[in-house]
Amino acid sequence: MLKRTGAYTIEFENQPVIAGWGSVAGKKEAEGPLKKYFDKIIYDSYDGCDTFEQAESMFQGEALEKALERSKTHANEVDCVFAGDLLNQCIGSSFGLMKFGIPYLGQYGACSTMAQSLIMAAAAVESGGAEISACVTSSHFASAERQYRFPLEYGGVRTPTAQWTVTGAGSCILKSLKKGICVARATVGRIVDLGVSDANNMGAAMAPAAAQTLECYLEDTKTSPEDYDMIITGDLGEVGSKSLYDLLERDGINIRKQHNDCGLMIFERSNQDVHSGGSGCGCAASVLCSKIMDDFQNGIVQNILFMATGALMSPTSSGQGANIPSIAHLVNIKIK
Amino acid sequence: MLKRTGAYTIEFENQPVIAGWGSVAGKKEAEGPLKKYFDKIIYDSYDGCDTFEQAESMFQGEALEKALERSKTHANEVDCVFAGDLLNQCIGSSFGLMKFGIPYLGQYGACSTMAQSLIMAAAAVESGGAEISACVTSSHFASAERQYRFPLEYGGVRTPTAQWTVTGAGSCILKSLKKGICVARATVGRIVDLGVSDANNMGAAMAPAAAQTLECYLEDTKTSPEDYDMIITGDLGEVGSKSLYDLLERDGINIRKQHNDCGLMIFERSNQDVHSGGSGCGCAASVLCSKIMDDFQNGIVQNILFMATGALMSPTSSGQGANIPSIAHLVNIKIK
Repeated sequence: MLKRTGAYTIEFENQPVIAGWGSVAGKKEAEGPLKKYFDKIIYDSYDGCDTFEQAESMFQGEALEKALERSKTHANEVDCVFAGDLLNQCIGSSFGLMKFGIPYLGQYGACSTMAQSLIMAAAAVESGGAEISACVTSSHFASAERQYRFPLEYGGVRTPTAQWTVTGAGSCILKSLKKGICVARATVGRIVDLGVSDANNMGAAMAPAAAQTLECYLEDTKTSPEDYDMIITGDLGEVGSKSLYDLLERDGINIRKQHNDCGLMIFERSNQDVHSGGSGCGCAASVLCSKIMDDFQNGIVQNILFMATGALMSPTSSGQGANIPSIAHLVNIKIK
Repeated sequence: MLKRTGAYTIEFENQPVIAGWGSVAGKKEAEGPLKKYFDKIIYDSYDGCDTFEQAESMFQGEALEKALERSKTHANEVDCVFAGDLLNQCIGSSFGLMKFGIPYLGQYGACSTMAQSLIMAAAAVESGGAEISACVTSSHFASAERQYRFPLEYGGVRTPTAQWTVTGAGSCILKSLKKGICVARATVGRIVDLGVSDANNMGAAMAPAAAQTLECYLEDTKTSPEDYDMIITGDLGEVGSKSLYDLLERDGINIRKQHNDCGLMIFERSNQDVHSGGSGCGCAASVLCSKIMDDFQNGIVQNILFMATGALMSPTSSGQGANIPSIAHLVNIKIK
């Protein structure tokens, strides 16, 4: 059963285990510091398909296949899959996962989707709704760029605060096991709008949501940043990470020692021309399902907070002059 | 706790109760046969806002407010809300629900979103993850038309198989109560593609998914259509409903007596020029949260199957020549 702790946090009494995981990354991501951790590197932006969108669907399937393989699970044993992506109507997920024949529940939390889907998949196992569940998310630089910004051929100049959408995907398989890397607690975020409307500065828009969710979690669980080996945000990038520090420090919370950001980990910013860092559903997903899970296996970390953030806007809402509402979902992952 | 029954169905042991519900409908919907059942009719397509998208966000808030009022609940008592819509990046939900400050989990199941969100909200209460949860979905003819098809000003001619996106929204509040109209069982659908690629014939594309989910449910629960007062599909329309009958009858299942479709119930097709019927997330949502809940209260029905269907495509996937993958989620709602 799930148990509520404080105002916004839930505890998983049986702590479902991440029994398998898989990551897929693109060429540029493989040129960054995490190359050796990715399960599969896809050098062709089309992944053998006709379009970037079809390629993104392929990534989802490839990440799920690797997670199934690692957890020694067949697709027909999985009771449900929670998945989402950034493409309109989440076609990356629906087209990518159809062939597996797993009961499907589409999730949309923008770049927070990996944390959201992981919470849902863990809750499904915890509640008895599923014996085995899965989550998958993805993003693709080329499909995101032409949907959200400009055709690639246009060669639009990027602002220094802009982030680079990660080409990649990640997937986890959740099971009820006695020992392993488990989901212990989660805090579902609330939507926040502090007035940022610059679609080229998503980090700043999302930082207030991250600050709110983390503060709620720490208060609900009566823990402090020192209790965790790492506090990892999804894709705040450099600008958003600094905003997060500022917001938290106003409230007397310092996470500089424990904090890292998937968007800063995946690229070498000094020579990869990604400006403020990586972003996209596939950023948090591919980093969680590669480097972070590897760190758990090698005893480098034992108890972390994984918090992915999302900007819940669209080109239409931005075009209509609206601010960028944001959200952050937090998952406490630890060894049991 | 949730309990699995058969291959694809889950049972809710405590059967969470739909403690409150609210529906909002537009002008054309109010000219149809369900006018007296809607909680709020909005005659202005802009609902006092600047854009159709902002109006759709308003609908979500208005439906949720009515559901909160009916269940005598304050927004700050709700532990989480599951919501989605048809707009790119689900901005109808994120912008519409932000002001309530409820932990938010965005759902995307196209027109199946009301059934999916209801399953998730019921599971949240059943599992102890929430004491009180909510679900909301919406659609708006004018925002959908310009996003999926043509600018309204273009006056595009519609095919006879086309459906009319409902302007409306619906919301339910779920609580753990001893008596009431409750969620007893659910079947999460799998994605189906039988080769339909005509985006003007969604009913035909979605019927195979409805047939598959209903057959799984009946087999898992060892029940037959006669065990239910009504079997209600979301928005198959006339073409899709006929396809559903054909598909089921090949397997010896006849639902003609119990079946109705929200897309056929909401409009008077003989004089409202909606071709094959209504569609959109708001179709199943507004009909469930008006006429169907009213029928429960008045003892007209006591045990029904509510099955919303969704077409998991996008204009991009259709433009790239892909088929229309579809899904159907089923909820068994009854009086306890």
